[in-house]
Amino acid sequence: MIKVGIIGATGYTGCELVRILLCHDEAQLVALSAKDRLDEELAEIYPNFRGMIKSKVEKLDIEGMASKVDVVFTALPHGVSMEVVPDLLAKGIKVIDLGADYRFKNLTAYEKWYNIHQSPNLLDKTVYGLPELHRDTVKQSNLVGNPGCYPTSIILALAPLLRNKWIDVNSIIADSKSGVSGAGCSPSEGSHYISCNESIKAYKVAAHRHTAEIEEQLSDIASEEVIITFTPHLVPMNRGILSTLYANLNKDANLESIHQYYQDFYQQEEFVRILPIGKMPETKYVRGSNYCDIGMTVDSRTKRVIVVSAIDNLVKGASGQAVQNMNLMFGLPENMGLKMPGLYP
Amino acid sequence: MIKVGIIGATGYTGCELVRILLCHDEAQLVALSAKDRLDEELAEIYPNFRGMIKSKVEKLDIEGMASKVDVVFTALPHGVSMEVVPDLLAKGIKVIDLGADYRFKNLTAYEKWYNIHQSPNLLDKTVYGLPELHRDTVKQSNLVGNPGCYPTSIILALAPLLRNKWIDVNSIIADSKSGVSGAGCSPSEGSHYISCNESIKAYKVAAHRHTAEIEEQLSDIASEEVIITFTPHLVPMNRGILSTLYANLNKDANLESIHQYYQDFYQQEEFVRILPIGKMPETKYVRGSNYCDIGMTVDSRTKRVIVVSAIDNLVKGASGQAVQNMNLMFGLPENMGLKMPGLYP
Amino acid sequence: MIKVGIIGATGYTGCELVRILLCHDEAQLVALSAKDRLDEELAEIYPNFRGMIKSKVEKLDIEGMASKVDVVFTALPHGVSMEVVPDLLAKGIKVIDLGADYRFKNLTAYEKWYNIHQSPNLLDKTVYGLPELHRDTVKQSNLVGNPGCYPTSIILALAPLLRNKWIDVNSIIADSKSGVSGAGCSPSEGSHYISCNESIKAYKVAAHRHTAEIEEQLSDIASEEVIITFTPHLVPMNRGILSTLYANLNKDANLESIHQYYQDFYQQEEFVRILPIGKMPETKYVRGSNYCDIGMTVDSRTKRVIVVSAIDNLVKGASGQAVQNMNLMFGLPENMGLKMPGLYP
Amino acid sequence: MIKVGIIGATGYTGCELVRILLCHDEAQLVALSAKDRLDEELAEIYPNFRGMIKSKVEKLDIEGMASKVDVVFTALPHGVSMEVVPDLLAKGIKVIDLGADYRFKNLTAYEKWYNIHQSPNLLDKTVYGLPELHRDTVKQSNLVGNPGCYPTSIILALAPLLRNKWIDVNSIIADSKSGVSGAGCSPSEGSHYISCNESIKAYKVAAHRHTAEIEEQLSDIASEEVIITFTPHLVPMNRGILSTLYANLNKDANLESIHQYYQDFYQQEEFVRILPIGKMPETKYVRGSNYCDIGMTVDSRTKRVIVVSAIDNLVKGASGQAVQNMNLMFGLPENMGLKMPGLYP
Repeated sequence: MIKVGIIGATGYTGCELVRILLCHDEAQLVALSAKDRLDEELAEIYPNFRGMIKSKVEKLDIEGMASKVDVVFTALPHGVSMEVVPDLLAKGIKVIDLGADYRFKNLTAYEKWYNIHQSPNLLDKTVYGLPELHRDTVKQSNLVGNPGCYPTSIILALAPLLRNKWIDVNSIIADSKSGVSGAGCSPSEGSHYISCNESIKAYKVAAHRHTAEIEEQLSDIASEEVIITFTPHLVPMNRGILSTLYANLNKDANLESIHQYYQDFYQQEEFVRILPIGKMPETKYVRGSNYCDIGMTVDSRTKRVIVVSAIDNLVKGASGQAVQNMNLMFGLPENMGLKMPGLYP
Repeated sequence: MIKVGIIGATGYTGCELVRILLCHDEAQLVALSAKDRLDEELAEIYPNFRGMIKSKVEKLDIEGMASKVDVVFTALPHGVSMEVVPDLLAKGIKVIDLGADYRFKNLTAYEKWYNIHQSPNLLDKTVYGLPELHRDTVKQSNLVGNPGCYPTSIILALAPLLRNKWIDVNSIIADSKSGVSGAGCSPSEGSHYISCNESIKAYKVAAHRHTAEIEEQLSDIASEEVIITFTPHLVPMNRGILSTLYANLNKDANLESIHQYYQDFYQQEEFVRILPIGKMPETKYVRGSNYCDIGMTVDSRTKRVIVVSAIDNLVKGASGQAVQNMNLMFGLPENMGLKMPGLYP
Repeated sequence: MIKVGIIGATGYTGCELVRILLCHDEAQLVALSAKDRLDEELAEIYPNFRGMIKSKVEKLDIEGMASKVDVVFTALPHGVSMEVVPDLLAKGIKVIDLGADYRFKNLTAYEKWYNIHQSPNLLDKTVYGLPELHRDTVKQSNLVGNPGCYPTSIILALAPLLRNKWIDVNSIIADSKSGVSGAGCSPSEGSHYISCNESIKAYKVAAHRHTAEIEEQLSDIASEEVIITFTPHLVPMNRGILSTLYANLNKDANLESIHQYYQDFYQQEEFVRILPIGKMPETKYVRGSNYCDIGMTVDSRTKRVIVVSAIDNLVKGASGQAVQNMNLMFGLPENMGLKMPGLYP
Repeated sequence: MIKVGIIGATGYTGCELVRILLCHDEAQLVALSAKDRLDEELAEIYPNFRGMIKSKVEKLDIEGMASKVDVVFTALPHGVSMEVVPDLLAKGIKVIDLGADYRFKNLTAYEKWYNIHQSPNLLDKTVYGLPELHRDTVKQSNLVGNPGCYPTSIILALAPLLRNKWIDVNSIIADSKSGVSGAGCSPSEGSHYISCNESIKAYKVAAHRHTAEIEEQLSDIASEEVIITFTPHLVPMNRGILSTLYANLNKDANLESIHQYYQDFYQQEEFVRILPIGKMPETKYVRGSNYCDIGMTVDSRTKRVIVVSAIDNLVKGASGQAVQNMNLMFGLPENMGLKMPGLYP
């Protein structure tokens, strides 16, 4: 039984980790910490857990936590993870960081879009935790930078096109649409019900931090520099990201070949579902599940390919993927605790 | 491994049975039948199941199904179940009927609110499948009438008050609010997005068929005739029922005693959660789970007690409870396959 | 042209007053004040007004405002209105207060449910601004206490029953359901999108302050003391209140007589629509309009009458009714600026 | 007073025409026809109109209608308008067609994306009713093809860029997001509440008929052929379209110059609001109003411009724009009946 700690347990990704781990056969939650709501039972903060977990939220004590756990999930804002991760690693604890601090190899990119890094030496050792692309290194790693929600939906959708040099790497446009849980649980004018409900908006247009993360990974896949235009949107729903991706085809490719290549590319992947030609993903069918659904078409009039992907931002886009990484790091079946279908209706 | 068939697999309760049974350790889906969408894969109809189940929807063949299964869930409109249930029972198959046909002992009540019964002789043998009240008989039964969604939320909330004679049985008012999945998956003017979204309405005021079912059960608990006023409402959300129940207190009871009695009454029940005094249930915390959350207060100015209960209409209000009954009928742990927490956020 | 000032212009009821008054032929907005967002253009705070109004939000200066306006709407929390209303009245300005401070004749009730009153002497002079019941006194008044949203929906629905002594005054139960705008624009855990969306809850069960206001008015109508049980609920929608009202019939009344009486009672009222027998109101049909829709039925099994009413909480439940009162106070046609139909779809 | 008839009065755009015209000072509804719900009062079909209009829905009688009206709005599916429009014109009635039949000059394009045209000779005489671009010809016309909802949001957003040759005409990508009312009022699996709620999907990717209409207009503005990639999405909200538009900049243009050009381009336009730099539109602020809000930014990393526009699909995207056209055709102030601000919250 793997003993698990969560730092930042009171946010949505923390809550979602608990939801998944409560049904995981080989993991046991032994420590929950956060900055706020100390000494409250987690089940009072998230009453969906009433009757299922007795644990209280505790003030972070790295020493104490390290003595009890095998692995820690850090579900913290960027800049905060790096204050605790080096200490945990030093004590021999494996770490899966759900923030941005350990997603980059490129220190310059991180520091340009985020802030000064406190433990740049660790960037060599961290692995970008997208199992479909980095499974083998995840297995060997003690520190995984768990991918962002938008990046997961975009990278999985574009990887086959880039790997096979199908598209002009300068032509990529990513138009993503996210549910409101992606904005976190802090009350603000922007997260007020009235502000979100019955409306859609674009935000941080061509200026969202995830751009850097996406570009580093896409460039790595393409073996050349990839620069994209990325626009996130806020949609009135709790969960889900739909990414619509546009790129100019390099060569005269037909839809059937591209589709076949996607199927082959993700042949072994349980959590990536390539939809039949003619079908497009909808976020409702991945709600609460760890799947990434991908559909595509070719616009022969403009010689563009359009790929659409759907994930649950809190599962495959965060906590589900983190558990998938944990399973890999501990030699467990990769899908353990992640076999739940989407909650539809 | 229990072999399971579902008749009426393409409706929402059928879909929800599949969702739950896919994660059940001791049940195996072996036959799905429906009237429509024949020969389609269920995973094409409900793409949340893509990659998880290969089964196709087949035309009902009772003989064939009976040869393969141990138990059948009939997820059919009232009046239709009774066309197939007697044959299944005759072939030694256990049946859990999610419709209304086998919920009544009182034939007159059934025929007044529904229609002529085709197998009235079976009413003696059927058990009302609310495990918290009828666990022992469910265990012995081959035919369970699975409770309606509104009745589940109302009966569980009122049972302690009636058992302990705390309230005037003629004073009960049940004001219930349901999500839209309760109305089924057929497209209609009333289920159109625009019709439901951003609005609330009452419907079938004092005329909903569930009234009869609720009254039969409440009368049984109270050992005297109970007649209630019941008003269902439609709320713009997918899942969930909140029932707000009003009754005049018979005696001078304080909130603490009543609350304590509820705790004692449901002491052994995993799926009923009595909230602390001062807390009231919200449907979001039971979404996707098999729990019934109950809170209460006393209005000392008017000498009324107000009890509020929340369930997921498709889980504890239908398919989850049906699996709970299946577990009991086959001697399995009652919570098998039902341990998932609510999906929040 | 009536010159209008709004104190508390940045809240939802302030915003709604602006929306209505921008289309009012005889009113001109000349002063907007608030505590926050000073010196910002209202059209930047509420961008729906871009291009329609240039006014900035100013710090409250009673002297200055009084020199410019004929009437002031105070859209302030209870306890705050009474700090400014006496000064405005003293300067000869008419006041319509959208808070609770001037809704009561009964000082004791106000002080029990709210707080110490600073200008109790004004309670004699204030008029409860429900035009359908108090039109003549509103016309004569300089100070109107504009009704609360829940009270409007409940009092209009029950007035005919009480006036005609049709019901047992001790048997009234009011189960109300409100959209989220009723909770105001301040960000909080309770107003977070994720907290409200896809859920329903009861709150302040048998303890909401509007109870006192409702009871004072109902008692006045009934000419005897009326005590009710009132439970508000929060529904995932922006606007709208649906109140479901239950009472025991005193005498053997049939639905037709009751319905006819309602029609007669509200014969002259443009903004109260009695629905045909068999129809029940839905909040979507009053969205954005000043109507109160009322439907009813009789539960002959339990000898109860059930009345359902629907309003837009921000229009008939607040700012629309306030403008209706302004029209009366200034001798304008009562419906001026209020002729817009509901926004459906 | 202009006498108005509506053919297709029971759909959403018909209903929205009624909503607007009921508050129009110079228009009077005198005839409503439709194929279904004959002889019902419109106010029973759309109860938001209760107490405001007595008219019944009648079977279409062109002769009879023509004898009573000055102008007819045809709110019909494509292919159906052309069955009635020639007759109306022949009788001297002005026609504003809300369908696609009279939006094209290019017969080939129409017939490729739609169907065989029955009155191709009228295409010379019809005017594309986007007043901001074709005001003068609308004023002179007896037949206006009222623009589609997506085209309105896209053409207004791109016109300045194309007019000033700022962008590569082969690089345009239009990613649009629409509320559900855009799909019409017919119940279907796709319009079921459960199907739409809590989800987003792309549909008709690179295959939506509006593409042809958009391209004809954009080519006309650019004076060269423009081919675009257009992807519509369905968003869980009643009203609103947000279009996010991407194009490669031809020349080194900075945001300030582009923004200034947009302000100049739409200087005289009441219904187009160019937002300040740094602000982006949200559909909630145009809900129920005739505005088109436009914001923009430049992605200097990729040398792309990104323009975002928001409209209410039923107002500026359909019935509001149709009334704007009527005003122009009859020499009335263009904004008559259209001065209502957005309904927010």
